[in-house]
Amino acid sequence: MFSRLVIIGVGLLGGSIGLAAKKYGLAQTVVGVGRTQKTLDIALRNGIIDQSYLLLEAVPPPTLHDQILVVVCTPVADITRNILAAIQHFGYSEHLLLTDVGSTKTKQVQEISDLRFIGSHPIAGSERNGPDAADAELFQNRLTVLTPTKYHPADNITLLRRFWETLGSHVIEIDAAKHDEILAVTSHLPHVLSVILTQTVQEDERPFTGTGFAGMTRLAAGSPEIWRDILVDNSDPLLNALHRFNSQLQKLMIALQKKDTKTIEQLLHNAKSVLVES
Amino acid sequence: MFSRLVIIGVGLLGGSIGLAAKKYGLAQTVVGVGRTQKTLDIALRNGIIDQSYLLLEAVPPPTLHDQILVVVCTPVADITRNILAAIQHFGYSEHLLLTDVGSTKTKQVQEISDLRFIGSHPIAGSERNGPDAADAELFQNRLTVLTPTKYHPADNITLLRRFWETLGSHVIEIDAAKHDEILAVTSHLPHVLSVILTQTVQEDERPFTGTGFAGMTRLAAGSPEIWRDILVDNSDPLLNALHRFNSQLQKLMIALQKKDTKTIEQLLHNAKSVLVES
Repeated sequence: MFSRLVIIGVGLLGGSIGLAAKKYGLAQTVVGVGRTQKTLDIALRNGIIDQSYLLLEAVPPPTLHDQILVVVCTPVADITRNILAAIQHFGYSEHLLLTDVGSTKTKQVQEISDLRFIGSHPIAGSERNGPDAADAELFQNRLTVLTPTKYHPADNITLLRRFWETLGSHVIEIDAAKHDEILAVTSHLPHVLSVILTQTVQEDERPFTGTGFAGMTRLAAGSPEIWRDILVDNSDPLLNALHRFNSQLQKLMIALQKKDTKTIEQLLHNAKSVLVES
Repeated sequence: MFSRLVIIGVGLLGGSIGLAAKKYGLAQTVVGVGRTQKTLDIALRNGIIDQSYLLLEAVPPPTLHDQILVVVCTPVADITRNILAAIQHFGYSEHLLLTDVGSTKTKQVQEISDLRFIGSHPIAGSERNGPDAADAELFQNRLTVLTPTKYHPADNITLLRRFWETLGSHVIEIDAAKHDEILAVTSHLPHVLSVILTQTVQEDERPFTGTGFAGMTRLAAGSPEIWRDILVDNSDPLLNALHRFNSQLQKLMIALQKKDTKTIEQLLHNAKSVLVES
């Protein structure tokens, strides 16, 4: 599908893309670009990439028939800068496609006008970080969202779609702003609740936590730097999601004040039935 | 330790107590009392109990040297009634000890004046229910809270403590009201957050959920009847816990409104460091 796959940021997601691309024969050469030699060495040793570079500018420039896919897998705050740098470096190539795996999409779509860039968001991950956690099957049966605009060439969209589908993903195309609104509720809100729950419990109360609490605070162990950028980037949709959460919570709090057993039971039944259906 | 262990309510907790009591030789005979013959038959077949009764009144009365421990493992709303019934049935015995495994404690301690009853709460569980989920090791390295008053005889407290310790538990004694305040934060608050998060996400957003969301909504699949009783029983401490949660959440919402990157990062770091320490 591609002569070269250039992965910028070889962590859990970038590493998993590298492993999967090699396993499913998606690129002749997989190139890793990373900030530390240590991470790149792990990626080389684990067979995730074929070549490693600390600087994008050091990656060999495109040849005549090079078909290049660049996937930026850095924290969201660094995506635009890296995409623009890649366009500058590979941009005169006839066959260049660029994407990212960021959890927020509106900003990149606004900042990057080059139509060879289409935003991707594979909804896949784990609490683990780094190339040692990489897994060729990470995207199997997961949803990947593409956020092309009406100006993007259909061929580019189809090629990117086929890339993710070959990695095992289901692919859906939606508007970037809509993506960010939805993910604020389904991903950023749960993360925030996990963090705030962790903050709420005091030190002398912690011995009284069980497996339920442990499950509810697992997300809060995620990288503060990665999540800081996501939350700031998507602050308006996230605030809307938090208001929606609060209005549901208010209903329960009023029922608790009234000891309104029926309403409380109804809320618990509704939540359980949603989970059973899904 | 006991000639008879009488378990009223042979579900996950009652069943696990039965299995563990037999494994660690805590009672000559384990008696199960349950509302349905089907559940009792599973418990008999799985070696959880030796005898089964649909009615407590049908259990043979105490003999002269009987040493009986009654453990009530029903939903919290039924604990007091069952303890009082057991006192009526076995109460003339010289050697009788009664306890429960309820997640809330203040109400039982207030309603049951017989000093042979001491409240227990093993902080152990799973998302699974029923005797088929019973596990002899469920209490290993878990904390069990006892809530005796200053009026309870030390011998009874010591005997109950040894019972839970033999099941593998660490035991701590605290005031019932204090227990309920703490568990409101460490157990009932997480449950409520899980339920409300499940309610907040709309049907058309659900395909965009990942493993993080799944982990955060797992508790909401718990029994609505069991949790309704816990939440209503402990509504005042739970409302305090929710106010504490909300005041932490307000801080984050203000930081999001201001796009105050530093404060957001600090919150994320604080939460992560708490988890790493514990």
